[in-house]
Amino acid sequence: MSLLDILLGRRLANREYETRKLGVLEGVPAMGLDGLGSSAYGPEAALTVLMPLGAGSLDYIGWVMAPILVLLAILFASYWQTIRAYPSNGGAYVVAKENMGRDAGLLAAGALMIDYVLNVAVGISAGVAALVSLLPGLHPYILPLCLGILALLTLLNLRGTIEAGWFLALPTYGFIACFAIVLALGVYRAMLSGGNPAAIVPPAALPQAGVAFGLWLVLRAFAAGCTAMTGVEAVSNSMSAFRDPPVVHGHRTLAAIVAILAVLLAGIAYLTAVYRIGALDQTQDGYRSVLAQLFGAVLGQGVWYQLSLGCVICVLVFSANTSFVGFPRLCRMVAEDGFLPKPFAMAGRRLVFSVGILYLAGAAGLLLLVFSGITDRLIPLFAIGAFLTFTLSQTGMVMHWRRTEGARLNFWINTIGAAATGAALLVIVVAKFGEGAWITILIIPCVIALLKSIQHYYRELQAQLRPPEPLKIERSEPPVVLVATEDWNRLTEQALRLALALSPDVIAIHLSHLSGPEAVEHDDGLRRRWADEVEAPTAAAGLVPPRLLLLPAQYRAMHEPVLKLVQELQPRFEGRRIAVLIPEIVKQRWYQHFLHARRARHLRAQLLRHGGTRLTVISVPWYLDAVQTGLEDPAPPAR
Amino acid sequence: MSLLDILLGRRLANREYETRKLGVLEGVPAMGLDGLGSSAYGPEAALTVLMPLGAGSLDYIGWVMAPILVLLAILFASYWQTIRAYPSNGGAYVVAKENMGRDAGLLAAGALMIDYVLNVAVGISAGVAALVSLLPGLHPYILPLCLGILALLTLLNLRGTIEAGWFLALPTYGFIACFAIVLALGVYRAMLSGGNPAAIVPPAALPQAGVAFGLWLVLRAFAAGCTAMTGVEAVSNSMSAFRDPPVVHGHRTLAAIVAILAVLLAGIAYLTAVYRIGALDQTQDGYRSVLAQLFGAVLGQGVWYQLSLGCVICVLVFSANTSFVGFPRLCRMVAEDGFLPKPFAMAGRRLVFSVGILYLAGAAGLLLLVFSGITDRLIPLFAIGAFLTFTLSQTGMVMHWRRTEGARLNFWINTIGAAATGAALLVIVVAKFGEGAWITILIIPCVIALLKSIQHYYRELQAQLRPPEPLKIERSEPPVVLVATEDWNRLTEQALRLALALSPDVIAIHLSHLSGPEAVEHDDGLRRRWADEVEAPTAAAGLVPPRLLLLPAQYRAMHEPVLKLVQELQPRFEGRRIAVLIPEIVKQRWYQHFLHARRARHLRAQLLRHGGTRLTVISVPWYLDAVQTGLEDPAPPAR
Repeated sequence: MSLLDILLGRRLANREYETRKLGVLEGVPAMGLDGLGSSAYGPEAALTVLMPLGAGSLDYIGWVMAPILVLLAILFASYWQTIRAYPSNGGAYVVAKENMGRDAGLLAAGALMIDYVLNVAVGISAGVAALVSLLPGLHPYILPLCLGILALLTLLNLRGTIEAGWFLALPTYGFIACFAIVLALGVYRAMLSGGNPAAIVPPAALPQAGVAFGLWLVLRAFAAGCTAMTGVEAVSNSMSAFRDPPVVHGHRTLAAIVAILAVLLAGIAYLTAVYRIGALDQTQDGYRSVLAQLFGAVLGQGVWYQLSLGCVICVLVFSANTSFVGFPRLCRMVAEDGFLPKPFAMAGRRLVFSVGILYLAGAAGLLLLVFSGITDRLIPLFAIGAFLTFTLSQTGMVMHWRRTEGARLNFWINTIGAAATGAALLVIVVAKFGEGAWITILIIPCVIALLKSIQHYYRELQAQLRPPEPLKIERSEPPVVLVATEDWNRLTEQALRLALALSPDVIAIHLSHLSGPEAVEHDDGLRRRWADEVEAPTAAAGLVPPRLLLLPAQYRAMHEPVLKLVQELQPRFEGRRIAVLIPEIVKQRWYQHFLHARRARHLRAQLLRHGGTRLTVISVPWYLDAVQTGLEDPAPPAR
Repeated sequence: MSLLDILLGRRLANREYETRKLGVLEGVPAMGLDGLGSSAYGPEAALTVLMPLGAGSLDYIGWVMAPILVLLAILFASYWQTIRAYPSNGGAYVVAKENMGRDAGLLAAGALMIDYVLNVAVGISAGVAALVSLLPGLHPYILPLCLGILALLTLLNLRGTIEAGWFLALPTYGFIACFAIVLALGVYRAMLSGGNPAAIVPPAALPQAGVAFGLWLVLRAFAAGCTAMTGVEAVSNSMSAFRDPPVVHGHRTLAAIVAILAVLLAGIAYLTAVYRIGALDQTQDGYRSVLAQLFGAVLGQGVWYQLSLGCVICVLVFSANTSFVGFPRLCRMVAEDGFLPKPFAMAGRRLVFSVGILYLAGAAGLLLLVFSGITDRLIPLFAIGAFLTFTLSQTGMVMHWRRTEGARLNFWINTIGAAATGAALLVIVVAKFGEGAWITILIIPCVIALLKSIQHYYRELQAQLRPPEPLKIERSEPPVVLVATEDWNRLTEQALRLALALSPDVIAIHLSHLSGPEAVEHDDGLRRRWADEVEAPTAAAGLVPPRLLLLPAQYRAMHEPVLKLVQELQPRFEGRRIAVLIPEIVKQRWYQHFLHARRARHLRAQLLRHGGTRLTVISVPWYLDAVQTGLEDPAPPAR
């Protein structure tokens, strides 16, 4: 059992693909944590903007949260339709590309990619920040904690999306259960007390209003609260992960995520208002998050309080998983269209797109390293990508329905969606431009340019490779074969036999002073043995005896004398290929890598790199031990 | 200009070898720093052992240093002879091997290798310790300083031994000049004052004797002081580095090193006695080394004092260079006899044995890392290797002269040398056994066992490769050729033409679902085009049309379906080789490594690894850009 088997599990066959797909039960933890986790910071972000209003902020939280809930409902309806219209993959990239052309698709893809990377870095570091504020002893370990969680998520998703879903099921459903209890208890007590429940642990007292209410303040609070909606698009981006019938499983998963998120947001908005809980200044001592105050007010400070906060932290920490599900699948589609390198579209040993997972982990890890695990400053860069994607996807769907007969209702739902998300995007851009949103606006065109230049490369490649016409048959002569020899031994003998079977023109070459000016050479002995043991019997058999050429290697580089010889031979063998036959001892054991000089490998690489199209390299393997064909892998049990 | 060119300098041709050799001027800094530097710690080590005698220790320092000087003279005489007898290489390994057999040679080689590695680690860390005691602000940077100096020495020696010699000339000759001034001034004042000079800065007062004088104490002091002699063997080990005539340059270098060392040792012994300078306890506050006290007594504490101490520190820090000259050349000889991997005997781009240099740096770096740059505990492991080598080399020379007519004097010189160094070795082993010398005694057999097992591997290899008889010519049929195809394009066309030139039996193989279960396949289109564009024209030309086989790649590993096909084909083509022809796009630019999936490379490696002797792999390169032959390198100016 290799290390990879232990870390990632056994290799999976293509025919096992169906068994790797997700239902609703795994889908919600795998894709929903981004959406659900945002309930922990969306309302708080809105309340933080309203802080200058002091106690008055609570009179307006309803005015901020209500449009957010309406927008969420519109998004839900539009993505419901998108999933039905694009059951195999309804991601913003595909919808925008198919309905609005290549550039719109690339815009959506670029925005989504940046969004996914930021989500991983911000999600993990926000979760770790919450953890550290609960357990201050962990403060020196912020960066290692962030990187450790990133590594865990990477490994989980390399094992498979379904494994990640199973692993995350416990924290996800625990979070939902705890939150349900808090909301039910809080609402029940609020009802009993006629809207003025007594907090078990009283929340922090709120100051008097510092500024007057204004529209701009509410708009900014709305923009901040909109972060609660990121993650809703995840299901449509990851449709290929669902079991048959994908539309049913996709719809159910989307519905579950949105319904739970809506209940959480509405409940939080209601309870903060009745319990009089406002946002506190994070930079001040004694800061407690809105959720912590809310849980304290409803549950006191016992075991349940700790457990509920623990669940929230878990969900925050693992909210990055949504990106790990969506990013590789997005990259795969973009790569299939030629805008990303081909390896992004190749399924790895566990039938997930490992290259995408590793790039995502690498990019997010770099961000965490650069910012030492504290990514607050990245948050303003964040919501733009999501809302740009929302808007493009909705607009694409509007185009889609316009061309579809009898889809009036669908058309209007998506039109409202597009208008609403577009307006929200505008508010977010204006509100957050100075805080860093301009960076996102700057990076997106760069990403698009990169994607386009990649496609340009592949197009050039295709143009060069396309055969103009059917195969032309020329009775071509066999190539001139050069056999690289170190000595007259069985390796050389085997290679020479093959060379004589391939071509009547065989030249053996031996490089001298390859180890340096003082190398001990047995050139004369080799010449004599060559005459006796090779040339004589070949001539006796009526064949042209292969000559032995001794080439001095002035710079101890093997390929240079060979290339020089090839240049000299080419006019003599006009129109014929030249093949260099390299006998190679196959290294079957680890210690052999220390004992051999890798000369065969090096010569082959250099000849291929510098040899030109008329040169061919033939590798003849030699084995010291029995050969492991590698075919003994047990066939996987068919499920 | 590549990075390697900047770091190491341009490539050197074999014919430039003579210009790379050393004279006396570069030889003394390159090889002598170990010997000269030991004057800084040898006398101090002896005085430290004598410390319990208090002020009385100074009455006995002469009794300890005199035999050391005699031993040095004997060593000088014997190595003088060794150099003349083995002018190409007079290292202990060669002398012991040629005169006392393989095992004695390996014992010398093992002891020397350990000694060289220890010398690098101990030398650098001792130098840095002296530097830090002068500039305590550097204390937090001990390990980075050690590793930085190690890196500098590694780079210098990779550039060439002669470059290292030039770089080290300034500190070496500065050290000698400073020391000469101190000794001359001190001796002059001592003469003037009738043997009782007044110290400018008085040395620390010495306590009364704690114990009585004893033979065992003097023997231990002698053993400790013998560390002053390590490094004397370096010249004989590095004879291949000298310019013609090597014996003359070797003799002069050896004479220069030993003469300077002897003057330094004698001078230090005399001046410590007349100035009443004893060793202080290093663990106590206010510790000053013997040399620092001596320099203070003679020079005061002005600029000259600082400069002289600085030179001593430089020499200590760079004393590791002796190992960098000797170790790679020793390993080269051992590797040529098959006891070390072949790459140790291959000259690198600058005509030095780079592999040995890198291994030495790696091993010493590991020791520095493990001990965090403080290697005091390694010092007792140290002198054994050197004196074991001395004794073996002397004994070998005794054998050598016994067989030589008219070499009576030579015989007796080496016999006395062997007896003296053997006796010193015995004293050192007994005196230092408990302090860690047992570790060396334990490691040496392990190293010898490793060397022998390496030779065993090469012998087995030779036995397997040796051809039993002259080449047997069988009119063998050409191989069956399998052409790996991704699509019908010019890459495939080129490969197919070559295949048809090589063999009448050509099968094209195309792997399906290589990117995963959902890969978009154009199998039917490929089949149709194959029939039209390949099979039809081939048949029309009267050749057997190459079939196209579609192989499903269940596990997305290319080699497995191909190996399975080869297994199926083998009974049908009894006795014939099977060649797999792989077209390969040569990556000429760095970004292409990201854009291609390395499938050709991977398939070739796996087929060679698992294919068995009947399988051959043919690589056909395809270039997108013009080919760089790599032959345009300017010819180096002949000097």
